[in-house]
Amino acid sequence: MKISLGSKTLLYPTPVLLVGTYDEHDKANLMCAAWGGICCSKPVCVNVSLRAATYSHRAIVARKAFTLGVPSDSQVKEADYMGIATGSKVDKFVEVGWTAVKSDLVDAPYAAEIPFVVECKLIETIELGLHTMFIGEVVDVKAEEQILGENGQPDMKKLSPLAFAPDNRKYYSVGNVAGDAFSVGKK
Amino acid sequence: MKISLGSKTLLYPTPVLLVGTYDEHDKANLMCAAWGGICCSKPVCVNVSLRAATYSHRAIVARKAFTLGVPSDSQVKEADYMGIATGSKVDKFVEVGWTAVKSDLVDAPYAAEIPFVVECKLIETIELGLHTMFIGEVVDVKAEEQILGENGQPDMKKLSPLAFAPDNRKYYSVGNVAGDAFSVGKK
Repeated sequence: MKISLGSKTLLYPTPVLLVGTYDEHDKANLMCAAWGGICCSKPVCVNVSLRAATYSHRAIVARKAFTLGVPSDSQVKEADYMGIATGSKVDKFVEVGWTAVKSDLVDAPYAAEIPFVVECKLIETIELGLHTMFIGEVVDVKAEEQILGENGQPDMKKLSPLAFAPDNRKYYSVGNVAGDAFSVGKK
Repeated sequence: MKISLGSKTLLYPTPVLLVGTYDEHDKANLMCAAWGGICCSKPVCVNVSLRAATYSHRAIVARKAFTLGVPSDSQVKEADYMGIATGSKVDKFVEVGWTAVKSDLVDAPYAAEIPFVVECKLIETIELGLHTMFIGEVVDVKAEEQILGENGQPDMKKLSPLAFAPDNRKYYSVGNVAGDAFSVGKK
């Protein structure tokens, strides 16, 4: 028997994404966002939603590009800070001691310290209400060598990304293998 | 030093969502999808992307509603099956022995056995390429009592949802608390 909880922003897991942008004065910024993910396989697209009031929202509109970085769970403090502070008042890269790297493909930065990053060109902007959804075409994916598996692709266990729980506002580690997709269901 | 992996559908974690739909003959179906998430806080909206070739795609277009269920990691076999089989050939509810429950709020079903479900009315359809993004306004969220925490909201640890790794196509459990959001970053 299910209990009704009303219309709430609940879904599990949501990712912890660090949105990298330049503002109109070329200042690099990172913002922590959980409303986002992959949305198309061809062309490869990702989506992330930001409130219009945010500094990063204005930057994406101005520069038409962004990056999505995935921090490891060991970077939970820095990631959370990116969701607390605003780039309109502080230089978050300076505050946490991270290095902003200019993407060679899109007009946006990412942090050298983040092990995984997706570089995107803005292709669609959808006004939904409190949030604006930005859809980016993925131009490249970059990863640190130490998070790659034997197949040369990122290994979730080595990356050890964070997941956000919207209810109790806690970050969780993504952990043990539960099964192989397109296989475990064959019985 | 980051290694370039090219334009690929990689992001961590992606969710494991069971999309519930009725087709034009009122047959209930579930499909496993990982391209989706929360996309707006007010009105509360979620998004899920499906290929136009899928049975579920046609059903959402026809009925203008869907549900997103979140299975527990103990249901990984059933969840994976929902991504292997097609509702055009089999009745997936019958195959796994699950019960289709008709939502009392939207024109779509969900599985009684899934501990967490979001009921949505289709409000936007965005053609992106191989995938169509469906945006649904969340009318209600329902959860089994045993996955609720002391605050009456879902507890990620009790729900124990799956996360999908697009690279090696493995499912992972979402696990241990890494920190409190809007807190751990204050230092």
